[in-house]
Amino acid sequence: MIELFDLINMIGTVAFAVSGALTAIDKKMDAFGVLIIAFVTALGGGTLCDILIGRTPVGWMTQLDSVYLIGIAYIAAILFYKKQERLRLALFIFDTVGLGVFTLIGLEKGLAIHLSPLICIALGTITGCFGGVIRDVLCTEIPIIFRKEIYATSCILGGVVFFILKKMNVDNDVIHVTALLTIIFTRLIVTYFGWHLPTLEYSQPSKDNIRK
Amino acid sequence: MIELFDLINMIGTVAFAVSGALTAIDKKMDAFGVLIIAFVTALGGGTLCDILIGRTPVGWMTQLDSVYLIGIAYIAAILFYKKQERLRLALFIFDTVGLGVFTLIGLEKGLAIHLSPLICIALGTITGCFGGVIRDVLCTEIPIIFRKEIYATSCILGGVVFFILKKMNVDNDVIHVTALLTIIFTRLIVTYFGWHLPTLEYSQPSKDNIRK
Amino acid sequence: MIELFDLINMIGTVAFAVSGALTAIDKKMDAFGVLIIAFVTALGGGTLCDILIGRTPVGWMTQLDSVYLIGIAYIAAILFYKKQERLRLALFIFDTVGLGVFTLIGLEKGLAIHLSPLICIALGTITGCFGGVIRDVLCTEIPIIFRKEIYATSCILGGVVFFILKKMNVDNDVIHVTALLTIIFTRLIVTYFGWHLPTLEYSQPSKDNIRK
Repeated sequence: MIELFDLINMIGTVAFAVSGALTAIDKKMDAFGVLIIAFVTALGGGTLCDILIGRTPVGWMTQLDSVYLIGIAYIAAILFYKKQERLRLALFIFDTVGLGVFTLIGLEKGLAIHLSPLICIALGTITGCFGGVIRDVLCTEIPIIFRKEIYATSCILGGVVFFILKKMNVDNDVIHVTALLTIIFTRLIVTYFGWHLPTLEYSQPSKDNIRK
Repeated sequence: MIELFDLINMIGTVAFAVSGALTAIDKKMDAFGVLIIAFVTALGGGTLCDILIGRTPVGWMTQLDSVYLIGIAYIAAILFYKKQERLRLALFIFDTVGLGVFTLIGLEKGLAIHLSPLICIALGTITGCFGGVIRDVLCTEIPIIFRKEIYATSCILGGVVFFILKKMNVDNDVIHVTALLTIIFTRLIVTYFGWHLPTLEYSQPSKDNIRK
Repeated sequence: MIELFDLINMIGTVAFAVSGALTAIDKKMDAFGVLIIAFVTALGGGTLCDILIGRTPVGWMTQLDSVYLIGIAYIAAILFYKKQERLRLALFIFDTVGLGVFTLIGLEKGLAIHLSPLICIALGTITGCFGGVIRDVLCTEIPIIFRKEIYATSCILGGVVFFILKKMNVDNDVIHVTALLTIIFTRLIVTYFGWHLPTLEYSQPSKDNIRK
């Protein structure tokens, strides 16, 4: 079980790093900027989670595997930059399984220090999603997950499933796999149908009426 | 005394969360983005303060009251979005008392670990103002308190009053109320008269002379 | 030796604070905004380093020297704003020695808690460069060191030299001076020749071919 999750974690780290690197290349950053954005996209969420709960030195400083992986992903992203169209589907799927396993890691970190389910779900969502938020802030974009992508919602749903099963005393491995699949399938379905969370844009006209 | 401050703290949390939510709605963020911006506006300053002094897990992870309050404020902001014009004055006043009590909370956190008055005032200002700074950064705006709003100045003044009274061995309750009122009244007066801190804009012409 | 490094550290702090203040004035921030940007430019890198390794309360909260120095640099920056053209070379040199000594401080913090050379170099680079990154984010600019300035590369090179000499059991003082000079001279040479790190811009045309 643990080996499988380690493998998925590695796949997720690479997918996040590659997505960060590609964004940075599109923004015309130089070789150093691309490296840093690859790094924060992959490790930013976990780092923020560690800082918030006081788990320092933060994870990647003592477990160097992910640092090396990101180095490899960085080089791969530069080499295959021109061919990214063909790899888009694979990247999307890797990114989605990464999202799932990152969320579980955040959840477990919260549980390990006896935080309440609500806060554990928040930590899971932060670990899964905030690497991308930091990436967007460093690229001076309003974070995409605040605007149109249903991404965090999958993490929250996965977290809820996790704690419902926990409450029912289901076996731990089953909980992990079910929560992971919930996150992955929600994201796949949502993306397939192009669903978005609602915004309040519809109220714009009436607001204009009042103000102008 | 403590109950009164708790009440003011709750009012402030709600006011900050509502102001964050309204900003995010204006920026056309989706339901999740609005929630996160409500959250960081209300808790970002205290969270940054906790991280800087190593008070982890950060406050809201173990005291969930403010998390629930922000949830309520978030729903209220969405429901009353169209009527915000009519609530503008109430929101402004709640926001101002919130600023005052947040500043005092930051000050006290610094005092509790024996930091110097200067650093305590910095922590108070961070707790009061940096939720708004993080909100603006996530909305890719230059933070408003760096540009035109006299906001931090009230916190600093309140902090100075706090330590002057402390030096004079005034009763603790009196210190808190006086510092709180200083922050509130400074902000009200400054806003009423439309005062701004100076910028160096006037030097623009002479700079142009030199450069062009 | 230590006194010399303390002096260089002070010069660097002042140079970083002045560069932050000048950027903020150019962005038309008010007096408070200029102060905060001076502050985060000078102390942001070290603060982030301290947070990542759990060295809290962060450094400047208990060693107030740099806080006072930044206050002086802030006033100086406002007074000499119009004459900055004439001081540009001095500022650049001070900034460069500051970069060197900040990097060494970050390296040593990592070594003190037995982190691996790779992570120590990352901490040195963060301490040297991330004050400027936070400055740029607060000014809603894509961080300049991610785009065109070879700045971080000097820190990394200095860090590599540091650990090679360490491996060779060279005397500690010699290591520090050599690493410092490596950082300073790399930056001076690179700036003199106007070298940049490569970007992938050249691939733009072929990408257009594929997509359109």
